[in-house]
Amino acid sequence: MLKGIPVSEGIAKGIAVCIKSEDKSENKQCIYKKAEDKDQESRRFNTSLQSFLEDTQESVNKLKKRGMEKESGILKSHMEIVKDPSVISKINEEIENGCCAEEAVDKTMGFFADIFEATGDELTMQRAADIRDVNKSLRDKLTKSESADLSNIPKGSVIIVDELTPSMAVYIDPEKVTGIIAESGGYTSHSAILSRALGIPAVLSVPEALLKINDGDELIVDGTTGDVIKDPTDADEAEYMKKAEDFKKHKELLREFSGKPSMTLCGEKKDVFANIGNAADAEKARSDDAEGIGLFRTEFLYMDRDSAPGEEEQLEAYRKAADIFAPAPVIIRTLDVGGDKNIPYMHMGKEDNPFMGFRAVRYCLENQSLFKTQIRALLRANTQGNIRIMLPMVTNLCEIRDVRDMINKCCEELKAEGKEFNSNVCLGIMIETPAAAVTADILAGEADFFSIGTNDLTGYMMSADRGNAKVSYLYKAYQPAVLRMIKFICESAHKAGIPVGMCGEAAADTILTPCLIAFGLDEFSVDSGKVLETRKNISMWSFNEAVEVSEKAMALHTAEETEQYLNSVKR
Amino acid sequence: MLKGIPVSEGIAKGIAVCIKSEDKSENKQCIYKKAEDKDQESRRFNTSLQSFLEDTQESVNKLKKRGMEKESGILKSHMEIVKDPSVISKINEEIENGCCAEEAVDKTMGFFADIFEATGDELTMQRAADIRDVNKSLRDKLTKSESADLSNIPKGSVIIVDELTPSMAVYIDPEKVTGIIAESGGYTSHSAILSRALGIPAVLSVPEALLKINDGDELIVDGTTGDVIKDPTDADEAEYMKKAEDFKKHKELLREFSGKPSMTLCGEKKDVFANIGNAADAEKARSDDAEGIGLFRTEFLYMDRDSAPGEEEQLEAYRKAADIFAPAPVIIRTLDVGGDKNIPYMHMGKEDNPFMGFRAVRYCLENQSLFKTQIRALLRANTQGNIRIMLPMVTNLCEIRDVRDMINKCCEELKAEGKEFNSNVCLGIMIETPAAAVTADILAGEADFFSIGTNDLTGYMMSADRGNAKVSYLYKAYQPAVLRMIKFICESAHKAGIPVGMCGEAAADTILTPCLIAFGLDEFSVDSGKVLETRKNISMWSFNEAVEVSEKAMALHTAEETEQYLNSVKR
Repeated sequence: MLKGIPVSEGIAKGIAVCIKSEDKSENKQCIYKKAEDKDQESRRFNTSLQSFLEDTQESVNKLKKRGMEKESGILKSHMEIVKDPSVISKINEEIENGCCAEEAVDKTMGFFADIFEATGDELTMQRAADIRDVNKSLRDKLTKSESADLSNIPKGSVIIVDELTPSMAVYIDPEKVTGIIAESGGYTSHSAILSRALGIPAVLSVPEALLKINDGDELIVDGTTGDVIKDPTDADEAEYMKKAEDFKKHKELLREFSGKPSMTLCGEKKDVFANIGNAADAEKARSDDAEGIGLFRTEFLYMDRDSAPGEEEQLEAYRKAADIFAPAPVIIRTLDVGGDKNIPYMHMGKEDNPFMGFRAVRYCLENQSLFKTQIRALLRANTQGNIRIMLPMVTNLCEIRDVRDMINKCCEELKAEGKEFNSNVCLGIMIETPAAAVTADILAGEADFFSIGTNDLTGYMMSADRGNAKVSYLYKAYQPAVLRMIKFICESAHKAGIPVGMCGEAAADTILTPCLIAFGLDEFSVDSGKVLETRKNISMWSFNEAVEVSEKAMALHTAEETEQYLNSVKR
Repeated sequence: MLKGIPVSEGIAKGIAVCIKSEDKSENKQCIYKKAEDKDQESRRFNTSLQSFLEDTQESVNKLKKRGMEKESGILKSHMEIVKDPSVISKINEEIENGCCAEEAVDKTMGFFADIFEATGDELTMQRAADIRDVNKSLRDKLTKSESADLSNIPKGSVIIVDELTPSMAVYIDPEKVTGIIAESGGYTSHSAILSRALGIPAVLSVPEALLKINDGDELIVDGTTGDVIKDPTDADEAEYMKKAEDFKKHKELLREFSGKPSMTLCGEKKDVFANIGNAADAEKARSDDAEGIGLFRTEFLYMDRDSAPGEEEQLEAYRKAADIFAPAPVIIRTLDVGGDKNIPYMHMGKEDNPFMGFRAVRYCLENQSLFKTQIRALLRANTQGNIRIMLPMVTNLCEIRDVRDMINKCCEELKAEGKEFNSNVCLGIMIETPAAAVTADILAGEADFFSIGTNDLTGYMMSADRGNAKVSYLYKAYQPAVLRMIKFICESAHKAGIPVGMCGEAAADTILTPCLIAFGLDEFSVDSGKVLETRKNISMWSFNEAVEVSEKAMALHTAEETEQYLNSVKR
């Protein structure tokens, strides 16, 4: 049995197809031919560059047609790499110095990849991997060798690669490929994002997978645990087929909750909403039976492009989501840029601690014309009156007041322009900073609703970056500090008579459900795939039982005790 | 009048001495001589490198003799730059490609400086400035020109430089130089650190200072406001001499509080302690009339060296500080590494958000042998029983428990080894994370004392990096969220019967004093230069008056209102 990082849920059975890329060590010691003619090398490079750009653009279009907007952005960024003036000029310089085109490309790309890799920073290292992917593609063009052909592999294949590159992903057919194994990559790597987007069970970072697995081997891939079984025995097969069956059954059981209202055991109505990133997600959320949208992350509208989306484009996206759910609420969060979400054309600058930096509502209040475009689009999209505006990263009252002023100004402008809009819009806030949490009673006086962002709130409360493996052990919503804040936020909202939701991952956490019911959380906003499970969780508890559990949990003094106790009473 | 960033307090009057470094634009367009002989260029480079290293080492020794340990570290880092294999190999490569030594050095240094500069990240850009400083020194060696001679300038000079480099600072004599003006640099730049260390009033980032000021100009430099007056009128002179007088008077007035106990107006005793970074600071703190040490930042013992200090070395430092203040308490904070404090030999790795990363007690608990060395030294230094151990960055109870276990283990070891030590030591914690603040009641059950670290607490509560100019407007201890936490921490400590101090900058903030007295803060730990001022602040308020002010302040809803109100009742 091999073991890796599970990144895309589900269990797959299939026959191994190993996709070996050029041997890297051989590549490194490659003997370059002597460049006879500088002009010729320069022409060779330019031809291959052109061909690379054309092919990549074609792949981008293909991915877009398959609805994989985000993934196509990865390929677009590959085109940016090779169009970078410092890259082009270094390649030309190397050719001028007497290198052949191949050597010039390898030297230049290797040079930049090495620099990025040396940072040790995960995101920058990902960039290095992208550069090496581009390097390989350009070399292939020069030597006229083509990438591994993934379009012609047989049905029922499990593919094994050293790294699943976006340029490969274009050719993967989910009808034929049942599972993916890669030697590198983690949960947030491009390979992982691509596997999940394709809906194929995948296990990454399996050491020496290409050495240990041969073409034709029978494989079971458990994308939930990270197990890879080679040549499974009958017992293995039985065990995993049972697991696959259970996985399917669990999904079916949840189907029973489809189309039903979300209610506690004692009949209290709750809302189970979905988190989405674009208007297309809203369709999926509707079909996954979400009762509304608790978090529309608008930053995705701004990503993977060269300039901010205009008012009309945003209007269309917001109106589409609003139409799908009307009259149910669609809570749209204003641009949450910064932190780990960088948008190049916004020129945000590198920060030492981006999570504690110039982001979200801070950025928007300083970039008024950008922000006004969004607010105007929201006001215009609100024709059915079900759009709610939500501000990210609020820390104090002034931010809410500033945004209200801006909304009023936008209303005046729209009125003067004779545009149709609906000024009757709720303005709520995310509670995700410690400052907002401990002053929730103050903020409740001027916000129309709260949504607790437990992901960031947990990180900020514990002063622990979730993405940092060395401190992630501290990152737990079961920490007494975090649970106290959630309770206080709910109480403050109710005292002020405003509704309170939650759009962090804790909203879908089975063992936290009784606490959230006891605190009086009104709305649970979860990934749309978790809507039914959350509805089921809520249905298991009466308010009184939940209060009993919550009181015991809140009396405990460590996250470990709290988690253990909540697990022991889990339903 | 010119204006810049004030970085070193005080008012200076003097005659301008402009130190112009080689014109940069000229430098850039420099026509390099043709390299006749590669070997010769290589030898020339090696000779200049050797000479640079020798001179720099000499400067390091000089600075050390003057007690400027930290500053000498900057120069040591310059030696590291030029010893870096990638730098050396690129220089040699350029020479091999036909460059003369000068061009090879400029190209290489320029190349690396450009890369660092392009990051836009303040610390990395500082590194770029260091590289350019080294570039200049190496070029000077090659062309045999020497750096500006600062040792022979007349008494009463105000020097004007484009950038105050560490290599210049070595030659500055505080007896002769009354003020410093530079065209570049901010509060945390090396120039600023050096000016403060030299005790010379300084204004940095004065645009075109070298163009606008000429040798012999009469100047007044206000290191408190950032004003630089050229050719002052009699009125100017009178005004600034009055300011200088007031500055002096204020300092004298404070002298009246020397040798007296710290008491509120109604006679309640408070402790005014000092924050220090090494045993020598303890001497100064004593002479500045501190009543004890509220924060001994031990990380400075670990910095600017190649390996961690051993048990005996630490023992000596801690014992020295303890002896100076015995029987008064000396609170020693265990190693607070990470965040913005990196120590190369600890190999901490680059983090996306170091403030929310693997730092302080988190690092120590994972590096037990390093941590045990410190704890053993503390236990052994505690012969007079006045040492208190304080843990930084605590977020939960488990951390206190783990350290207590470790202390017990160390006691057993020391006992077995027959070493003299005192196990009767208080174990307290910094309250500087939001998690610790909102669970102060829980932590008070197992900590022997609290010290509120308002600097980090404010940053974490507001999710705003103080060093990030774009969000520093949020960074205010007057934020209701921060004040509420300070109040809750004080109440929690007193309910549990343990003392509570404060070692962040808020402890010395005049307008916050009534609130801190009202909350019941027991101990104010401040920079030793602020001891008397803090004692004076405390003496201005009776408890009842302070409570009245505090209640009004706590009822306000924004930092602006709170700051305005506290200013209006300031004494």
